[in-house]
Amino acid sequence: MSQDPLKAIRGSFLDFVDDPFYIPETDSVRYLSDGLLVLENGKIKAFGPYAELQAEYDHLPTTVYSEQLIVPGFIDTHVHYPQTEMIAAYGEQLLAWLNRYTFPTESKFADKSYARTIANFFLEQLLHHGTTTALVFAAVFPQSVDAFFEAAEQLNLCMIAGKVMMDRNAPEAVCDTAESSYQETRALIQKWHKKGRLRYAVTPRFAITSTEAQLRYAGQLLQEFPDVYLHTHLSENVDEVAAVKQLYPDCAGYLDVYDQAGLVTDRSIFAHGVQLSDAEFRRLSAAQSAIAFCPTSNLFLGSGLFKIEQAKSPDYPVKVGLGTDVGAGTSFSLLQTANEAYKVAQLRRQQLSPFKALFLATLGGARALNLETLLGSFDLGKEADFIVLNPRATPLLALRSGEATPTSLDELADQLFALMMLGDDRAVHATYIMGELVFQP
Amino acid sequence: MSQDPLKAIRGSFLDFVDDPFYIPETDSVRYLSDGLLVLENGKIKAFGPYAELQAEYDHLPTTVYSEQLIVPGFIDTHVHYPQTEMIAAYGEQLLAWLNRYTFPTESKFADKSYARTIANFFLEQLLHHGTTTALVFAAVFPQSVDAFFEAAEQLNLCMIAGKVMMDRNAPEAVCDTAESSYQETRALIQKWHKKGRLRYAVTPRFAITSTEAQLRYAGQLLQEFPDVYLHTHLSENVDEVAAVKQLYPDCAGYLDVYDQAGLVTDRSIFAHGVQLSDAEFRRLSAAQSAIAFCPTSNLFLGSGLFKIEQAKSPDYPVKVGLGTDVGAGTSFSLLQTANEAYKVAQLRRQQLSPFKALFLATLGGARALNLETLLGSFDLGKEADFIVLNPRATPLLALRSGEATPTSLDELADQLFALMMLGDDRAVHATYIMGELVFQP
Repeated sequence: MSQDPLKAIRGSFLDFVDDPFYIPETDSVRYLSDGLLVLENGKIKAFGPYAELQAEYDHLPTTVYSEQLIVPGFIDTHVHYPQTEMIAAYGEQLLAWLNRYTFPTESKFADKSYARTIANFFLEQLLHHGTTTALVFAAVFPQSVDAFFEAAEQLNLCMIAGKVMMDRNAPEAVCDTAESSYQETRALIQKWHKKGRLRYAVTPRFAITSTEAQLRYAGQLLQEFPDVYLHTHLSENVDEVAAVKQLYPDCAGYLDVYDQAGLVTDRSIFAHGVQLSDAEFRRLSAAQSAIAFCPTSNLFLGSGLFKIEQAKSPDYPVKVGLGTDVGAGTSFSLLQTANEAYKVAQLRRQQLSPFKALFLATLGGARALNLETLLGSFDLGKEADFIVLNPRATPLLALRSGEATPTSLDELADQLFALMMLGDDRAVHATYIMGELVFQP
Repeated sequence: MSQDPLKAIRGSFLDFVDDPFYIPETDSVRYLSDGLLVLENGKIKAFGPYAELQAEYDHLPTTVYSEQLIVPGFIDTHVHYPQTEMIAAYGEQLLAWLNRYTFPTESKFADKSYARTIANFFLEQLLHHGTTTALVFAAVFPQSVDAFFEAAEQLNLCMIAGKVMMDRNAPEAVCDTAESSYQETRALIQKWHKKGRLRYAVTPRFAITSTEAQLRYAGQLLQEFPDVYLHTHLSENVDEVAAVKQLYPDCAGYLDVYDQAGLVTDRSIFAHGVQLSDAEFRRLSAAQSAIAFCPTSNLFLGSGLFKIEQAKSPDYPVKVGLGTDVGAGTSFSLLQTANEAYKVAQLRRQQLSPFKALFLATLGGARALNLETLLGSFDLGKEADFIVLNPRATPLLALRSGEATPTSLDELADQLFALMMLGDDRAVHATYIMGELVFQP
């Protein structure tokens, strides 16, 4: 991929300058119905109304997207690449689903060439669905991490991933030991963390499949490498929470298991949190940890309804991103994930506006991953990962959205909501990574 | 469309010979991995393993679908054609949603040429999504029914529809009167009921927007025309149920409002039933009425979780079909509707197997609409409305489903489940009506 030093994209742009959960949408949403994005070496050099920037940049090679909507690339804050092939596995809730489907599938990722094939397929799916950054579970095998990062590096993607740490309550074929998980993770961090756009996440699967010793090793790694992430599961399912209480009788609750191991930090991302107590939400807020809200997964496994309004409470706010959680999630699309996030909120008599949902999928996700200085909006200096959405991608969307380009926030909200309810990968017209077009159907 | 007098389709066929909610799937599912369907003038003349029928029918012009799955056309037991354009309308639960979005939209259907445009679009969407028969709300205007039936007749479709009856609690522009609704419905029945493949449903919107007088007129129509249908809404939303109790203080409950007007019959289809009491389920069972289960709508409007296992209880079974309920539903696809039906069941710790879901979408829907002698399976003599599903329609489906044609019910269930979780209109490879190919992408 050759890069022009300077080039421009013209079209309708939508992103956020603040969090619409706390700041009125009129002040947090940024919409340029005719905007210009100027890129220099993959980063954003200028951004504003075309009319204002025209004089200075009209000479640049410019790609024009008319009647489309350009937004920052989607950020998937929780997904398992080795589970791609077992998406839509029938009939179980969390713990049985892990035993019946997940562990056998993940055991295949001891084979690095198999892992490479799936990693490439997975990353291609992400780009086709408009996802440009993800926080990713690999399998227990270090080579499954190598395969993933090699594939991501090839595509110049900002990806965060880690080797699963899992030393009990799982088949031997997919277990490590506390000691080996520490050594292997340590080596992987040294090999991959901050190599180009890649980042490492220390990744114990969850409290049930790690001994206390292993969780303490995970905490030790966070001490040794202060800017790596912690990525695990938390309070997804009622039976899981009960099992954790049995395994850790001395802990005050599920989150406390992680807290006692030093895993609750401002670089920690916990998937699900469906069953969290009020005190646990407060603790996550105080620690500046993040939750990955994974509605398609929570519905598919019957885990329950995440309390988005509590997580985003102004009194004790928690960082939240959206996660597809494939393979328990049922779509790679963050549009479809927003669809079901809206439905989860509706069942709880809460409203998740389209702007709030898009925030979660973009700048909110970047904040959850502490990447907001690099990604998640069109602010100057950020890396130019963005996507072009087609509001008329299917006949039904075309009928629903009509012909006009939105000229008000209300019209824009309506178009965006239709995209979330009716859109999927077909609505992704183009995906750019560091200013380069990498996917167009 | 010219019809060959005799022709054949060869491929993998799946349908039902009985209800898998009551009869083990090994005895209720019929699967021919290499079958032959012989058609004569749009009806099924022969059906069985290719090896058995080959000698007799090998000379016929034969269309072969390899590596596809042929199933009866989907039956959508509850959908509103005038709401097509307002699908995905933001932010409300049922009653506010009706006032804010539905009534203004439906008022446009006083214009017959507009109604015709939307009716054609709607029917095309149904065929693209694999739906070959539907029970359809028109608008309050008789010309909206004419437009719909004219379009359906042109396509030779088996469709059931009716004019909305609504004489209170709605804007005047979309209201009739008890008397006019009776006269107009009567005239429409005489014009359209049993004209070719068309059927009429007496269609009061719901108890809140009809006076008792209007409901009694609806009951009178059922007496005068014993083989028309009754189609309405029932117990969708908690606030709605409370409002009905206020409006009808002398009735024992929501269903009783309809019962007192003579509307609870073996030709009655009630949409939703999310909030039904045990006694109401029993009454529906005794009356042999049917429920249209509309999961994408129930989630979208936050109405709640339908109790499928209670409706299908062996002690007091109720006929159940699936409904998309577009515009409150979020997809025309009965595959996507099955996806969310599964999730609703999971949230209630119930399991909806892929065969049970497919039954609801085919033979179960036909039974709900009393059309099982004509439609819903490949039984001899039935009308040949069927669809060809592509289990590898997208890259993800292809990865998930693999290459092989299922050779066991377990393998087939797995493939079907993947289609329901990951499939949409793209998985519909062809749609046949009365043995004629009417849609292929």
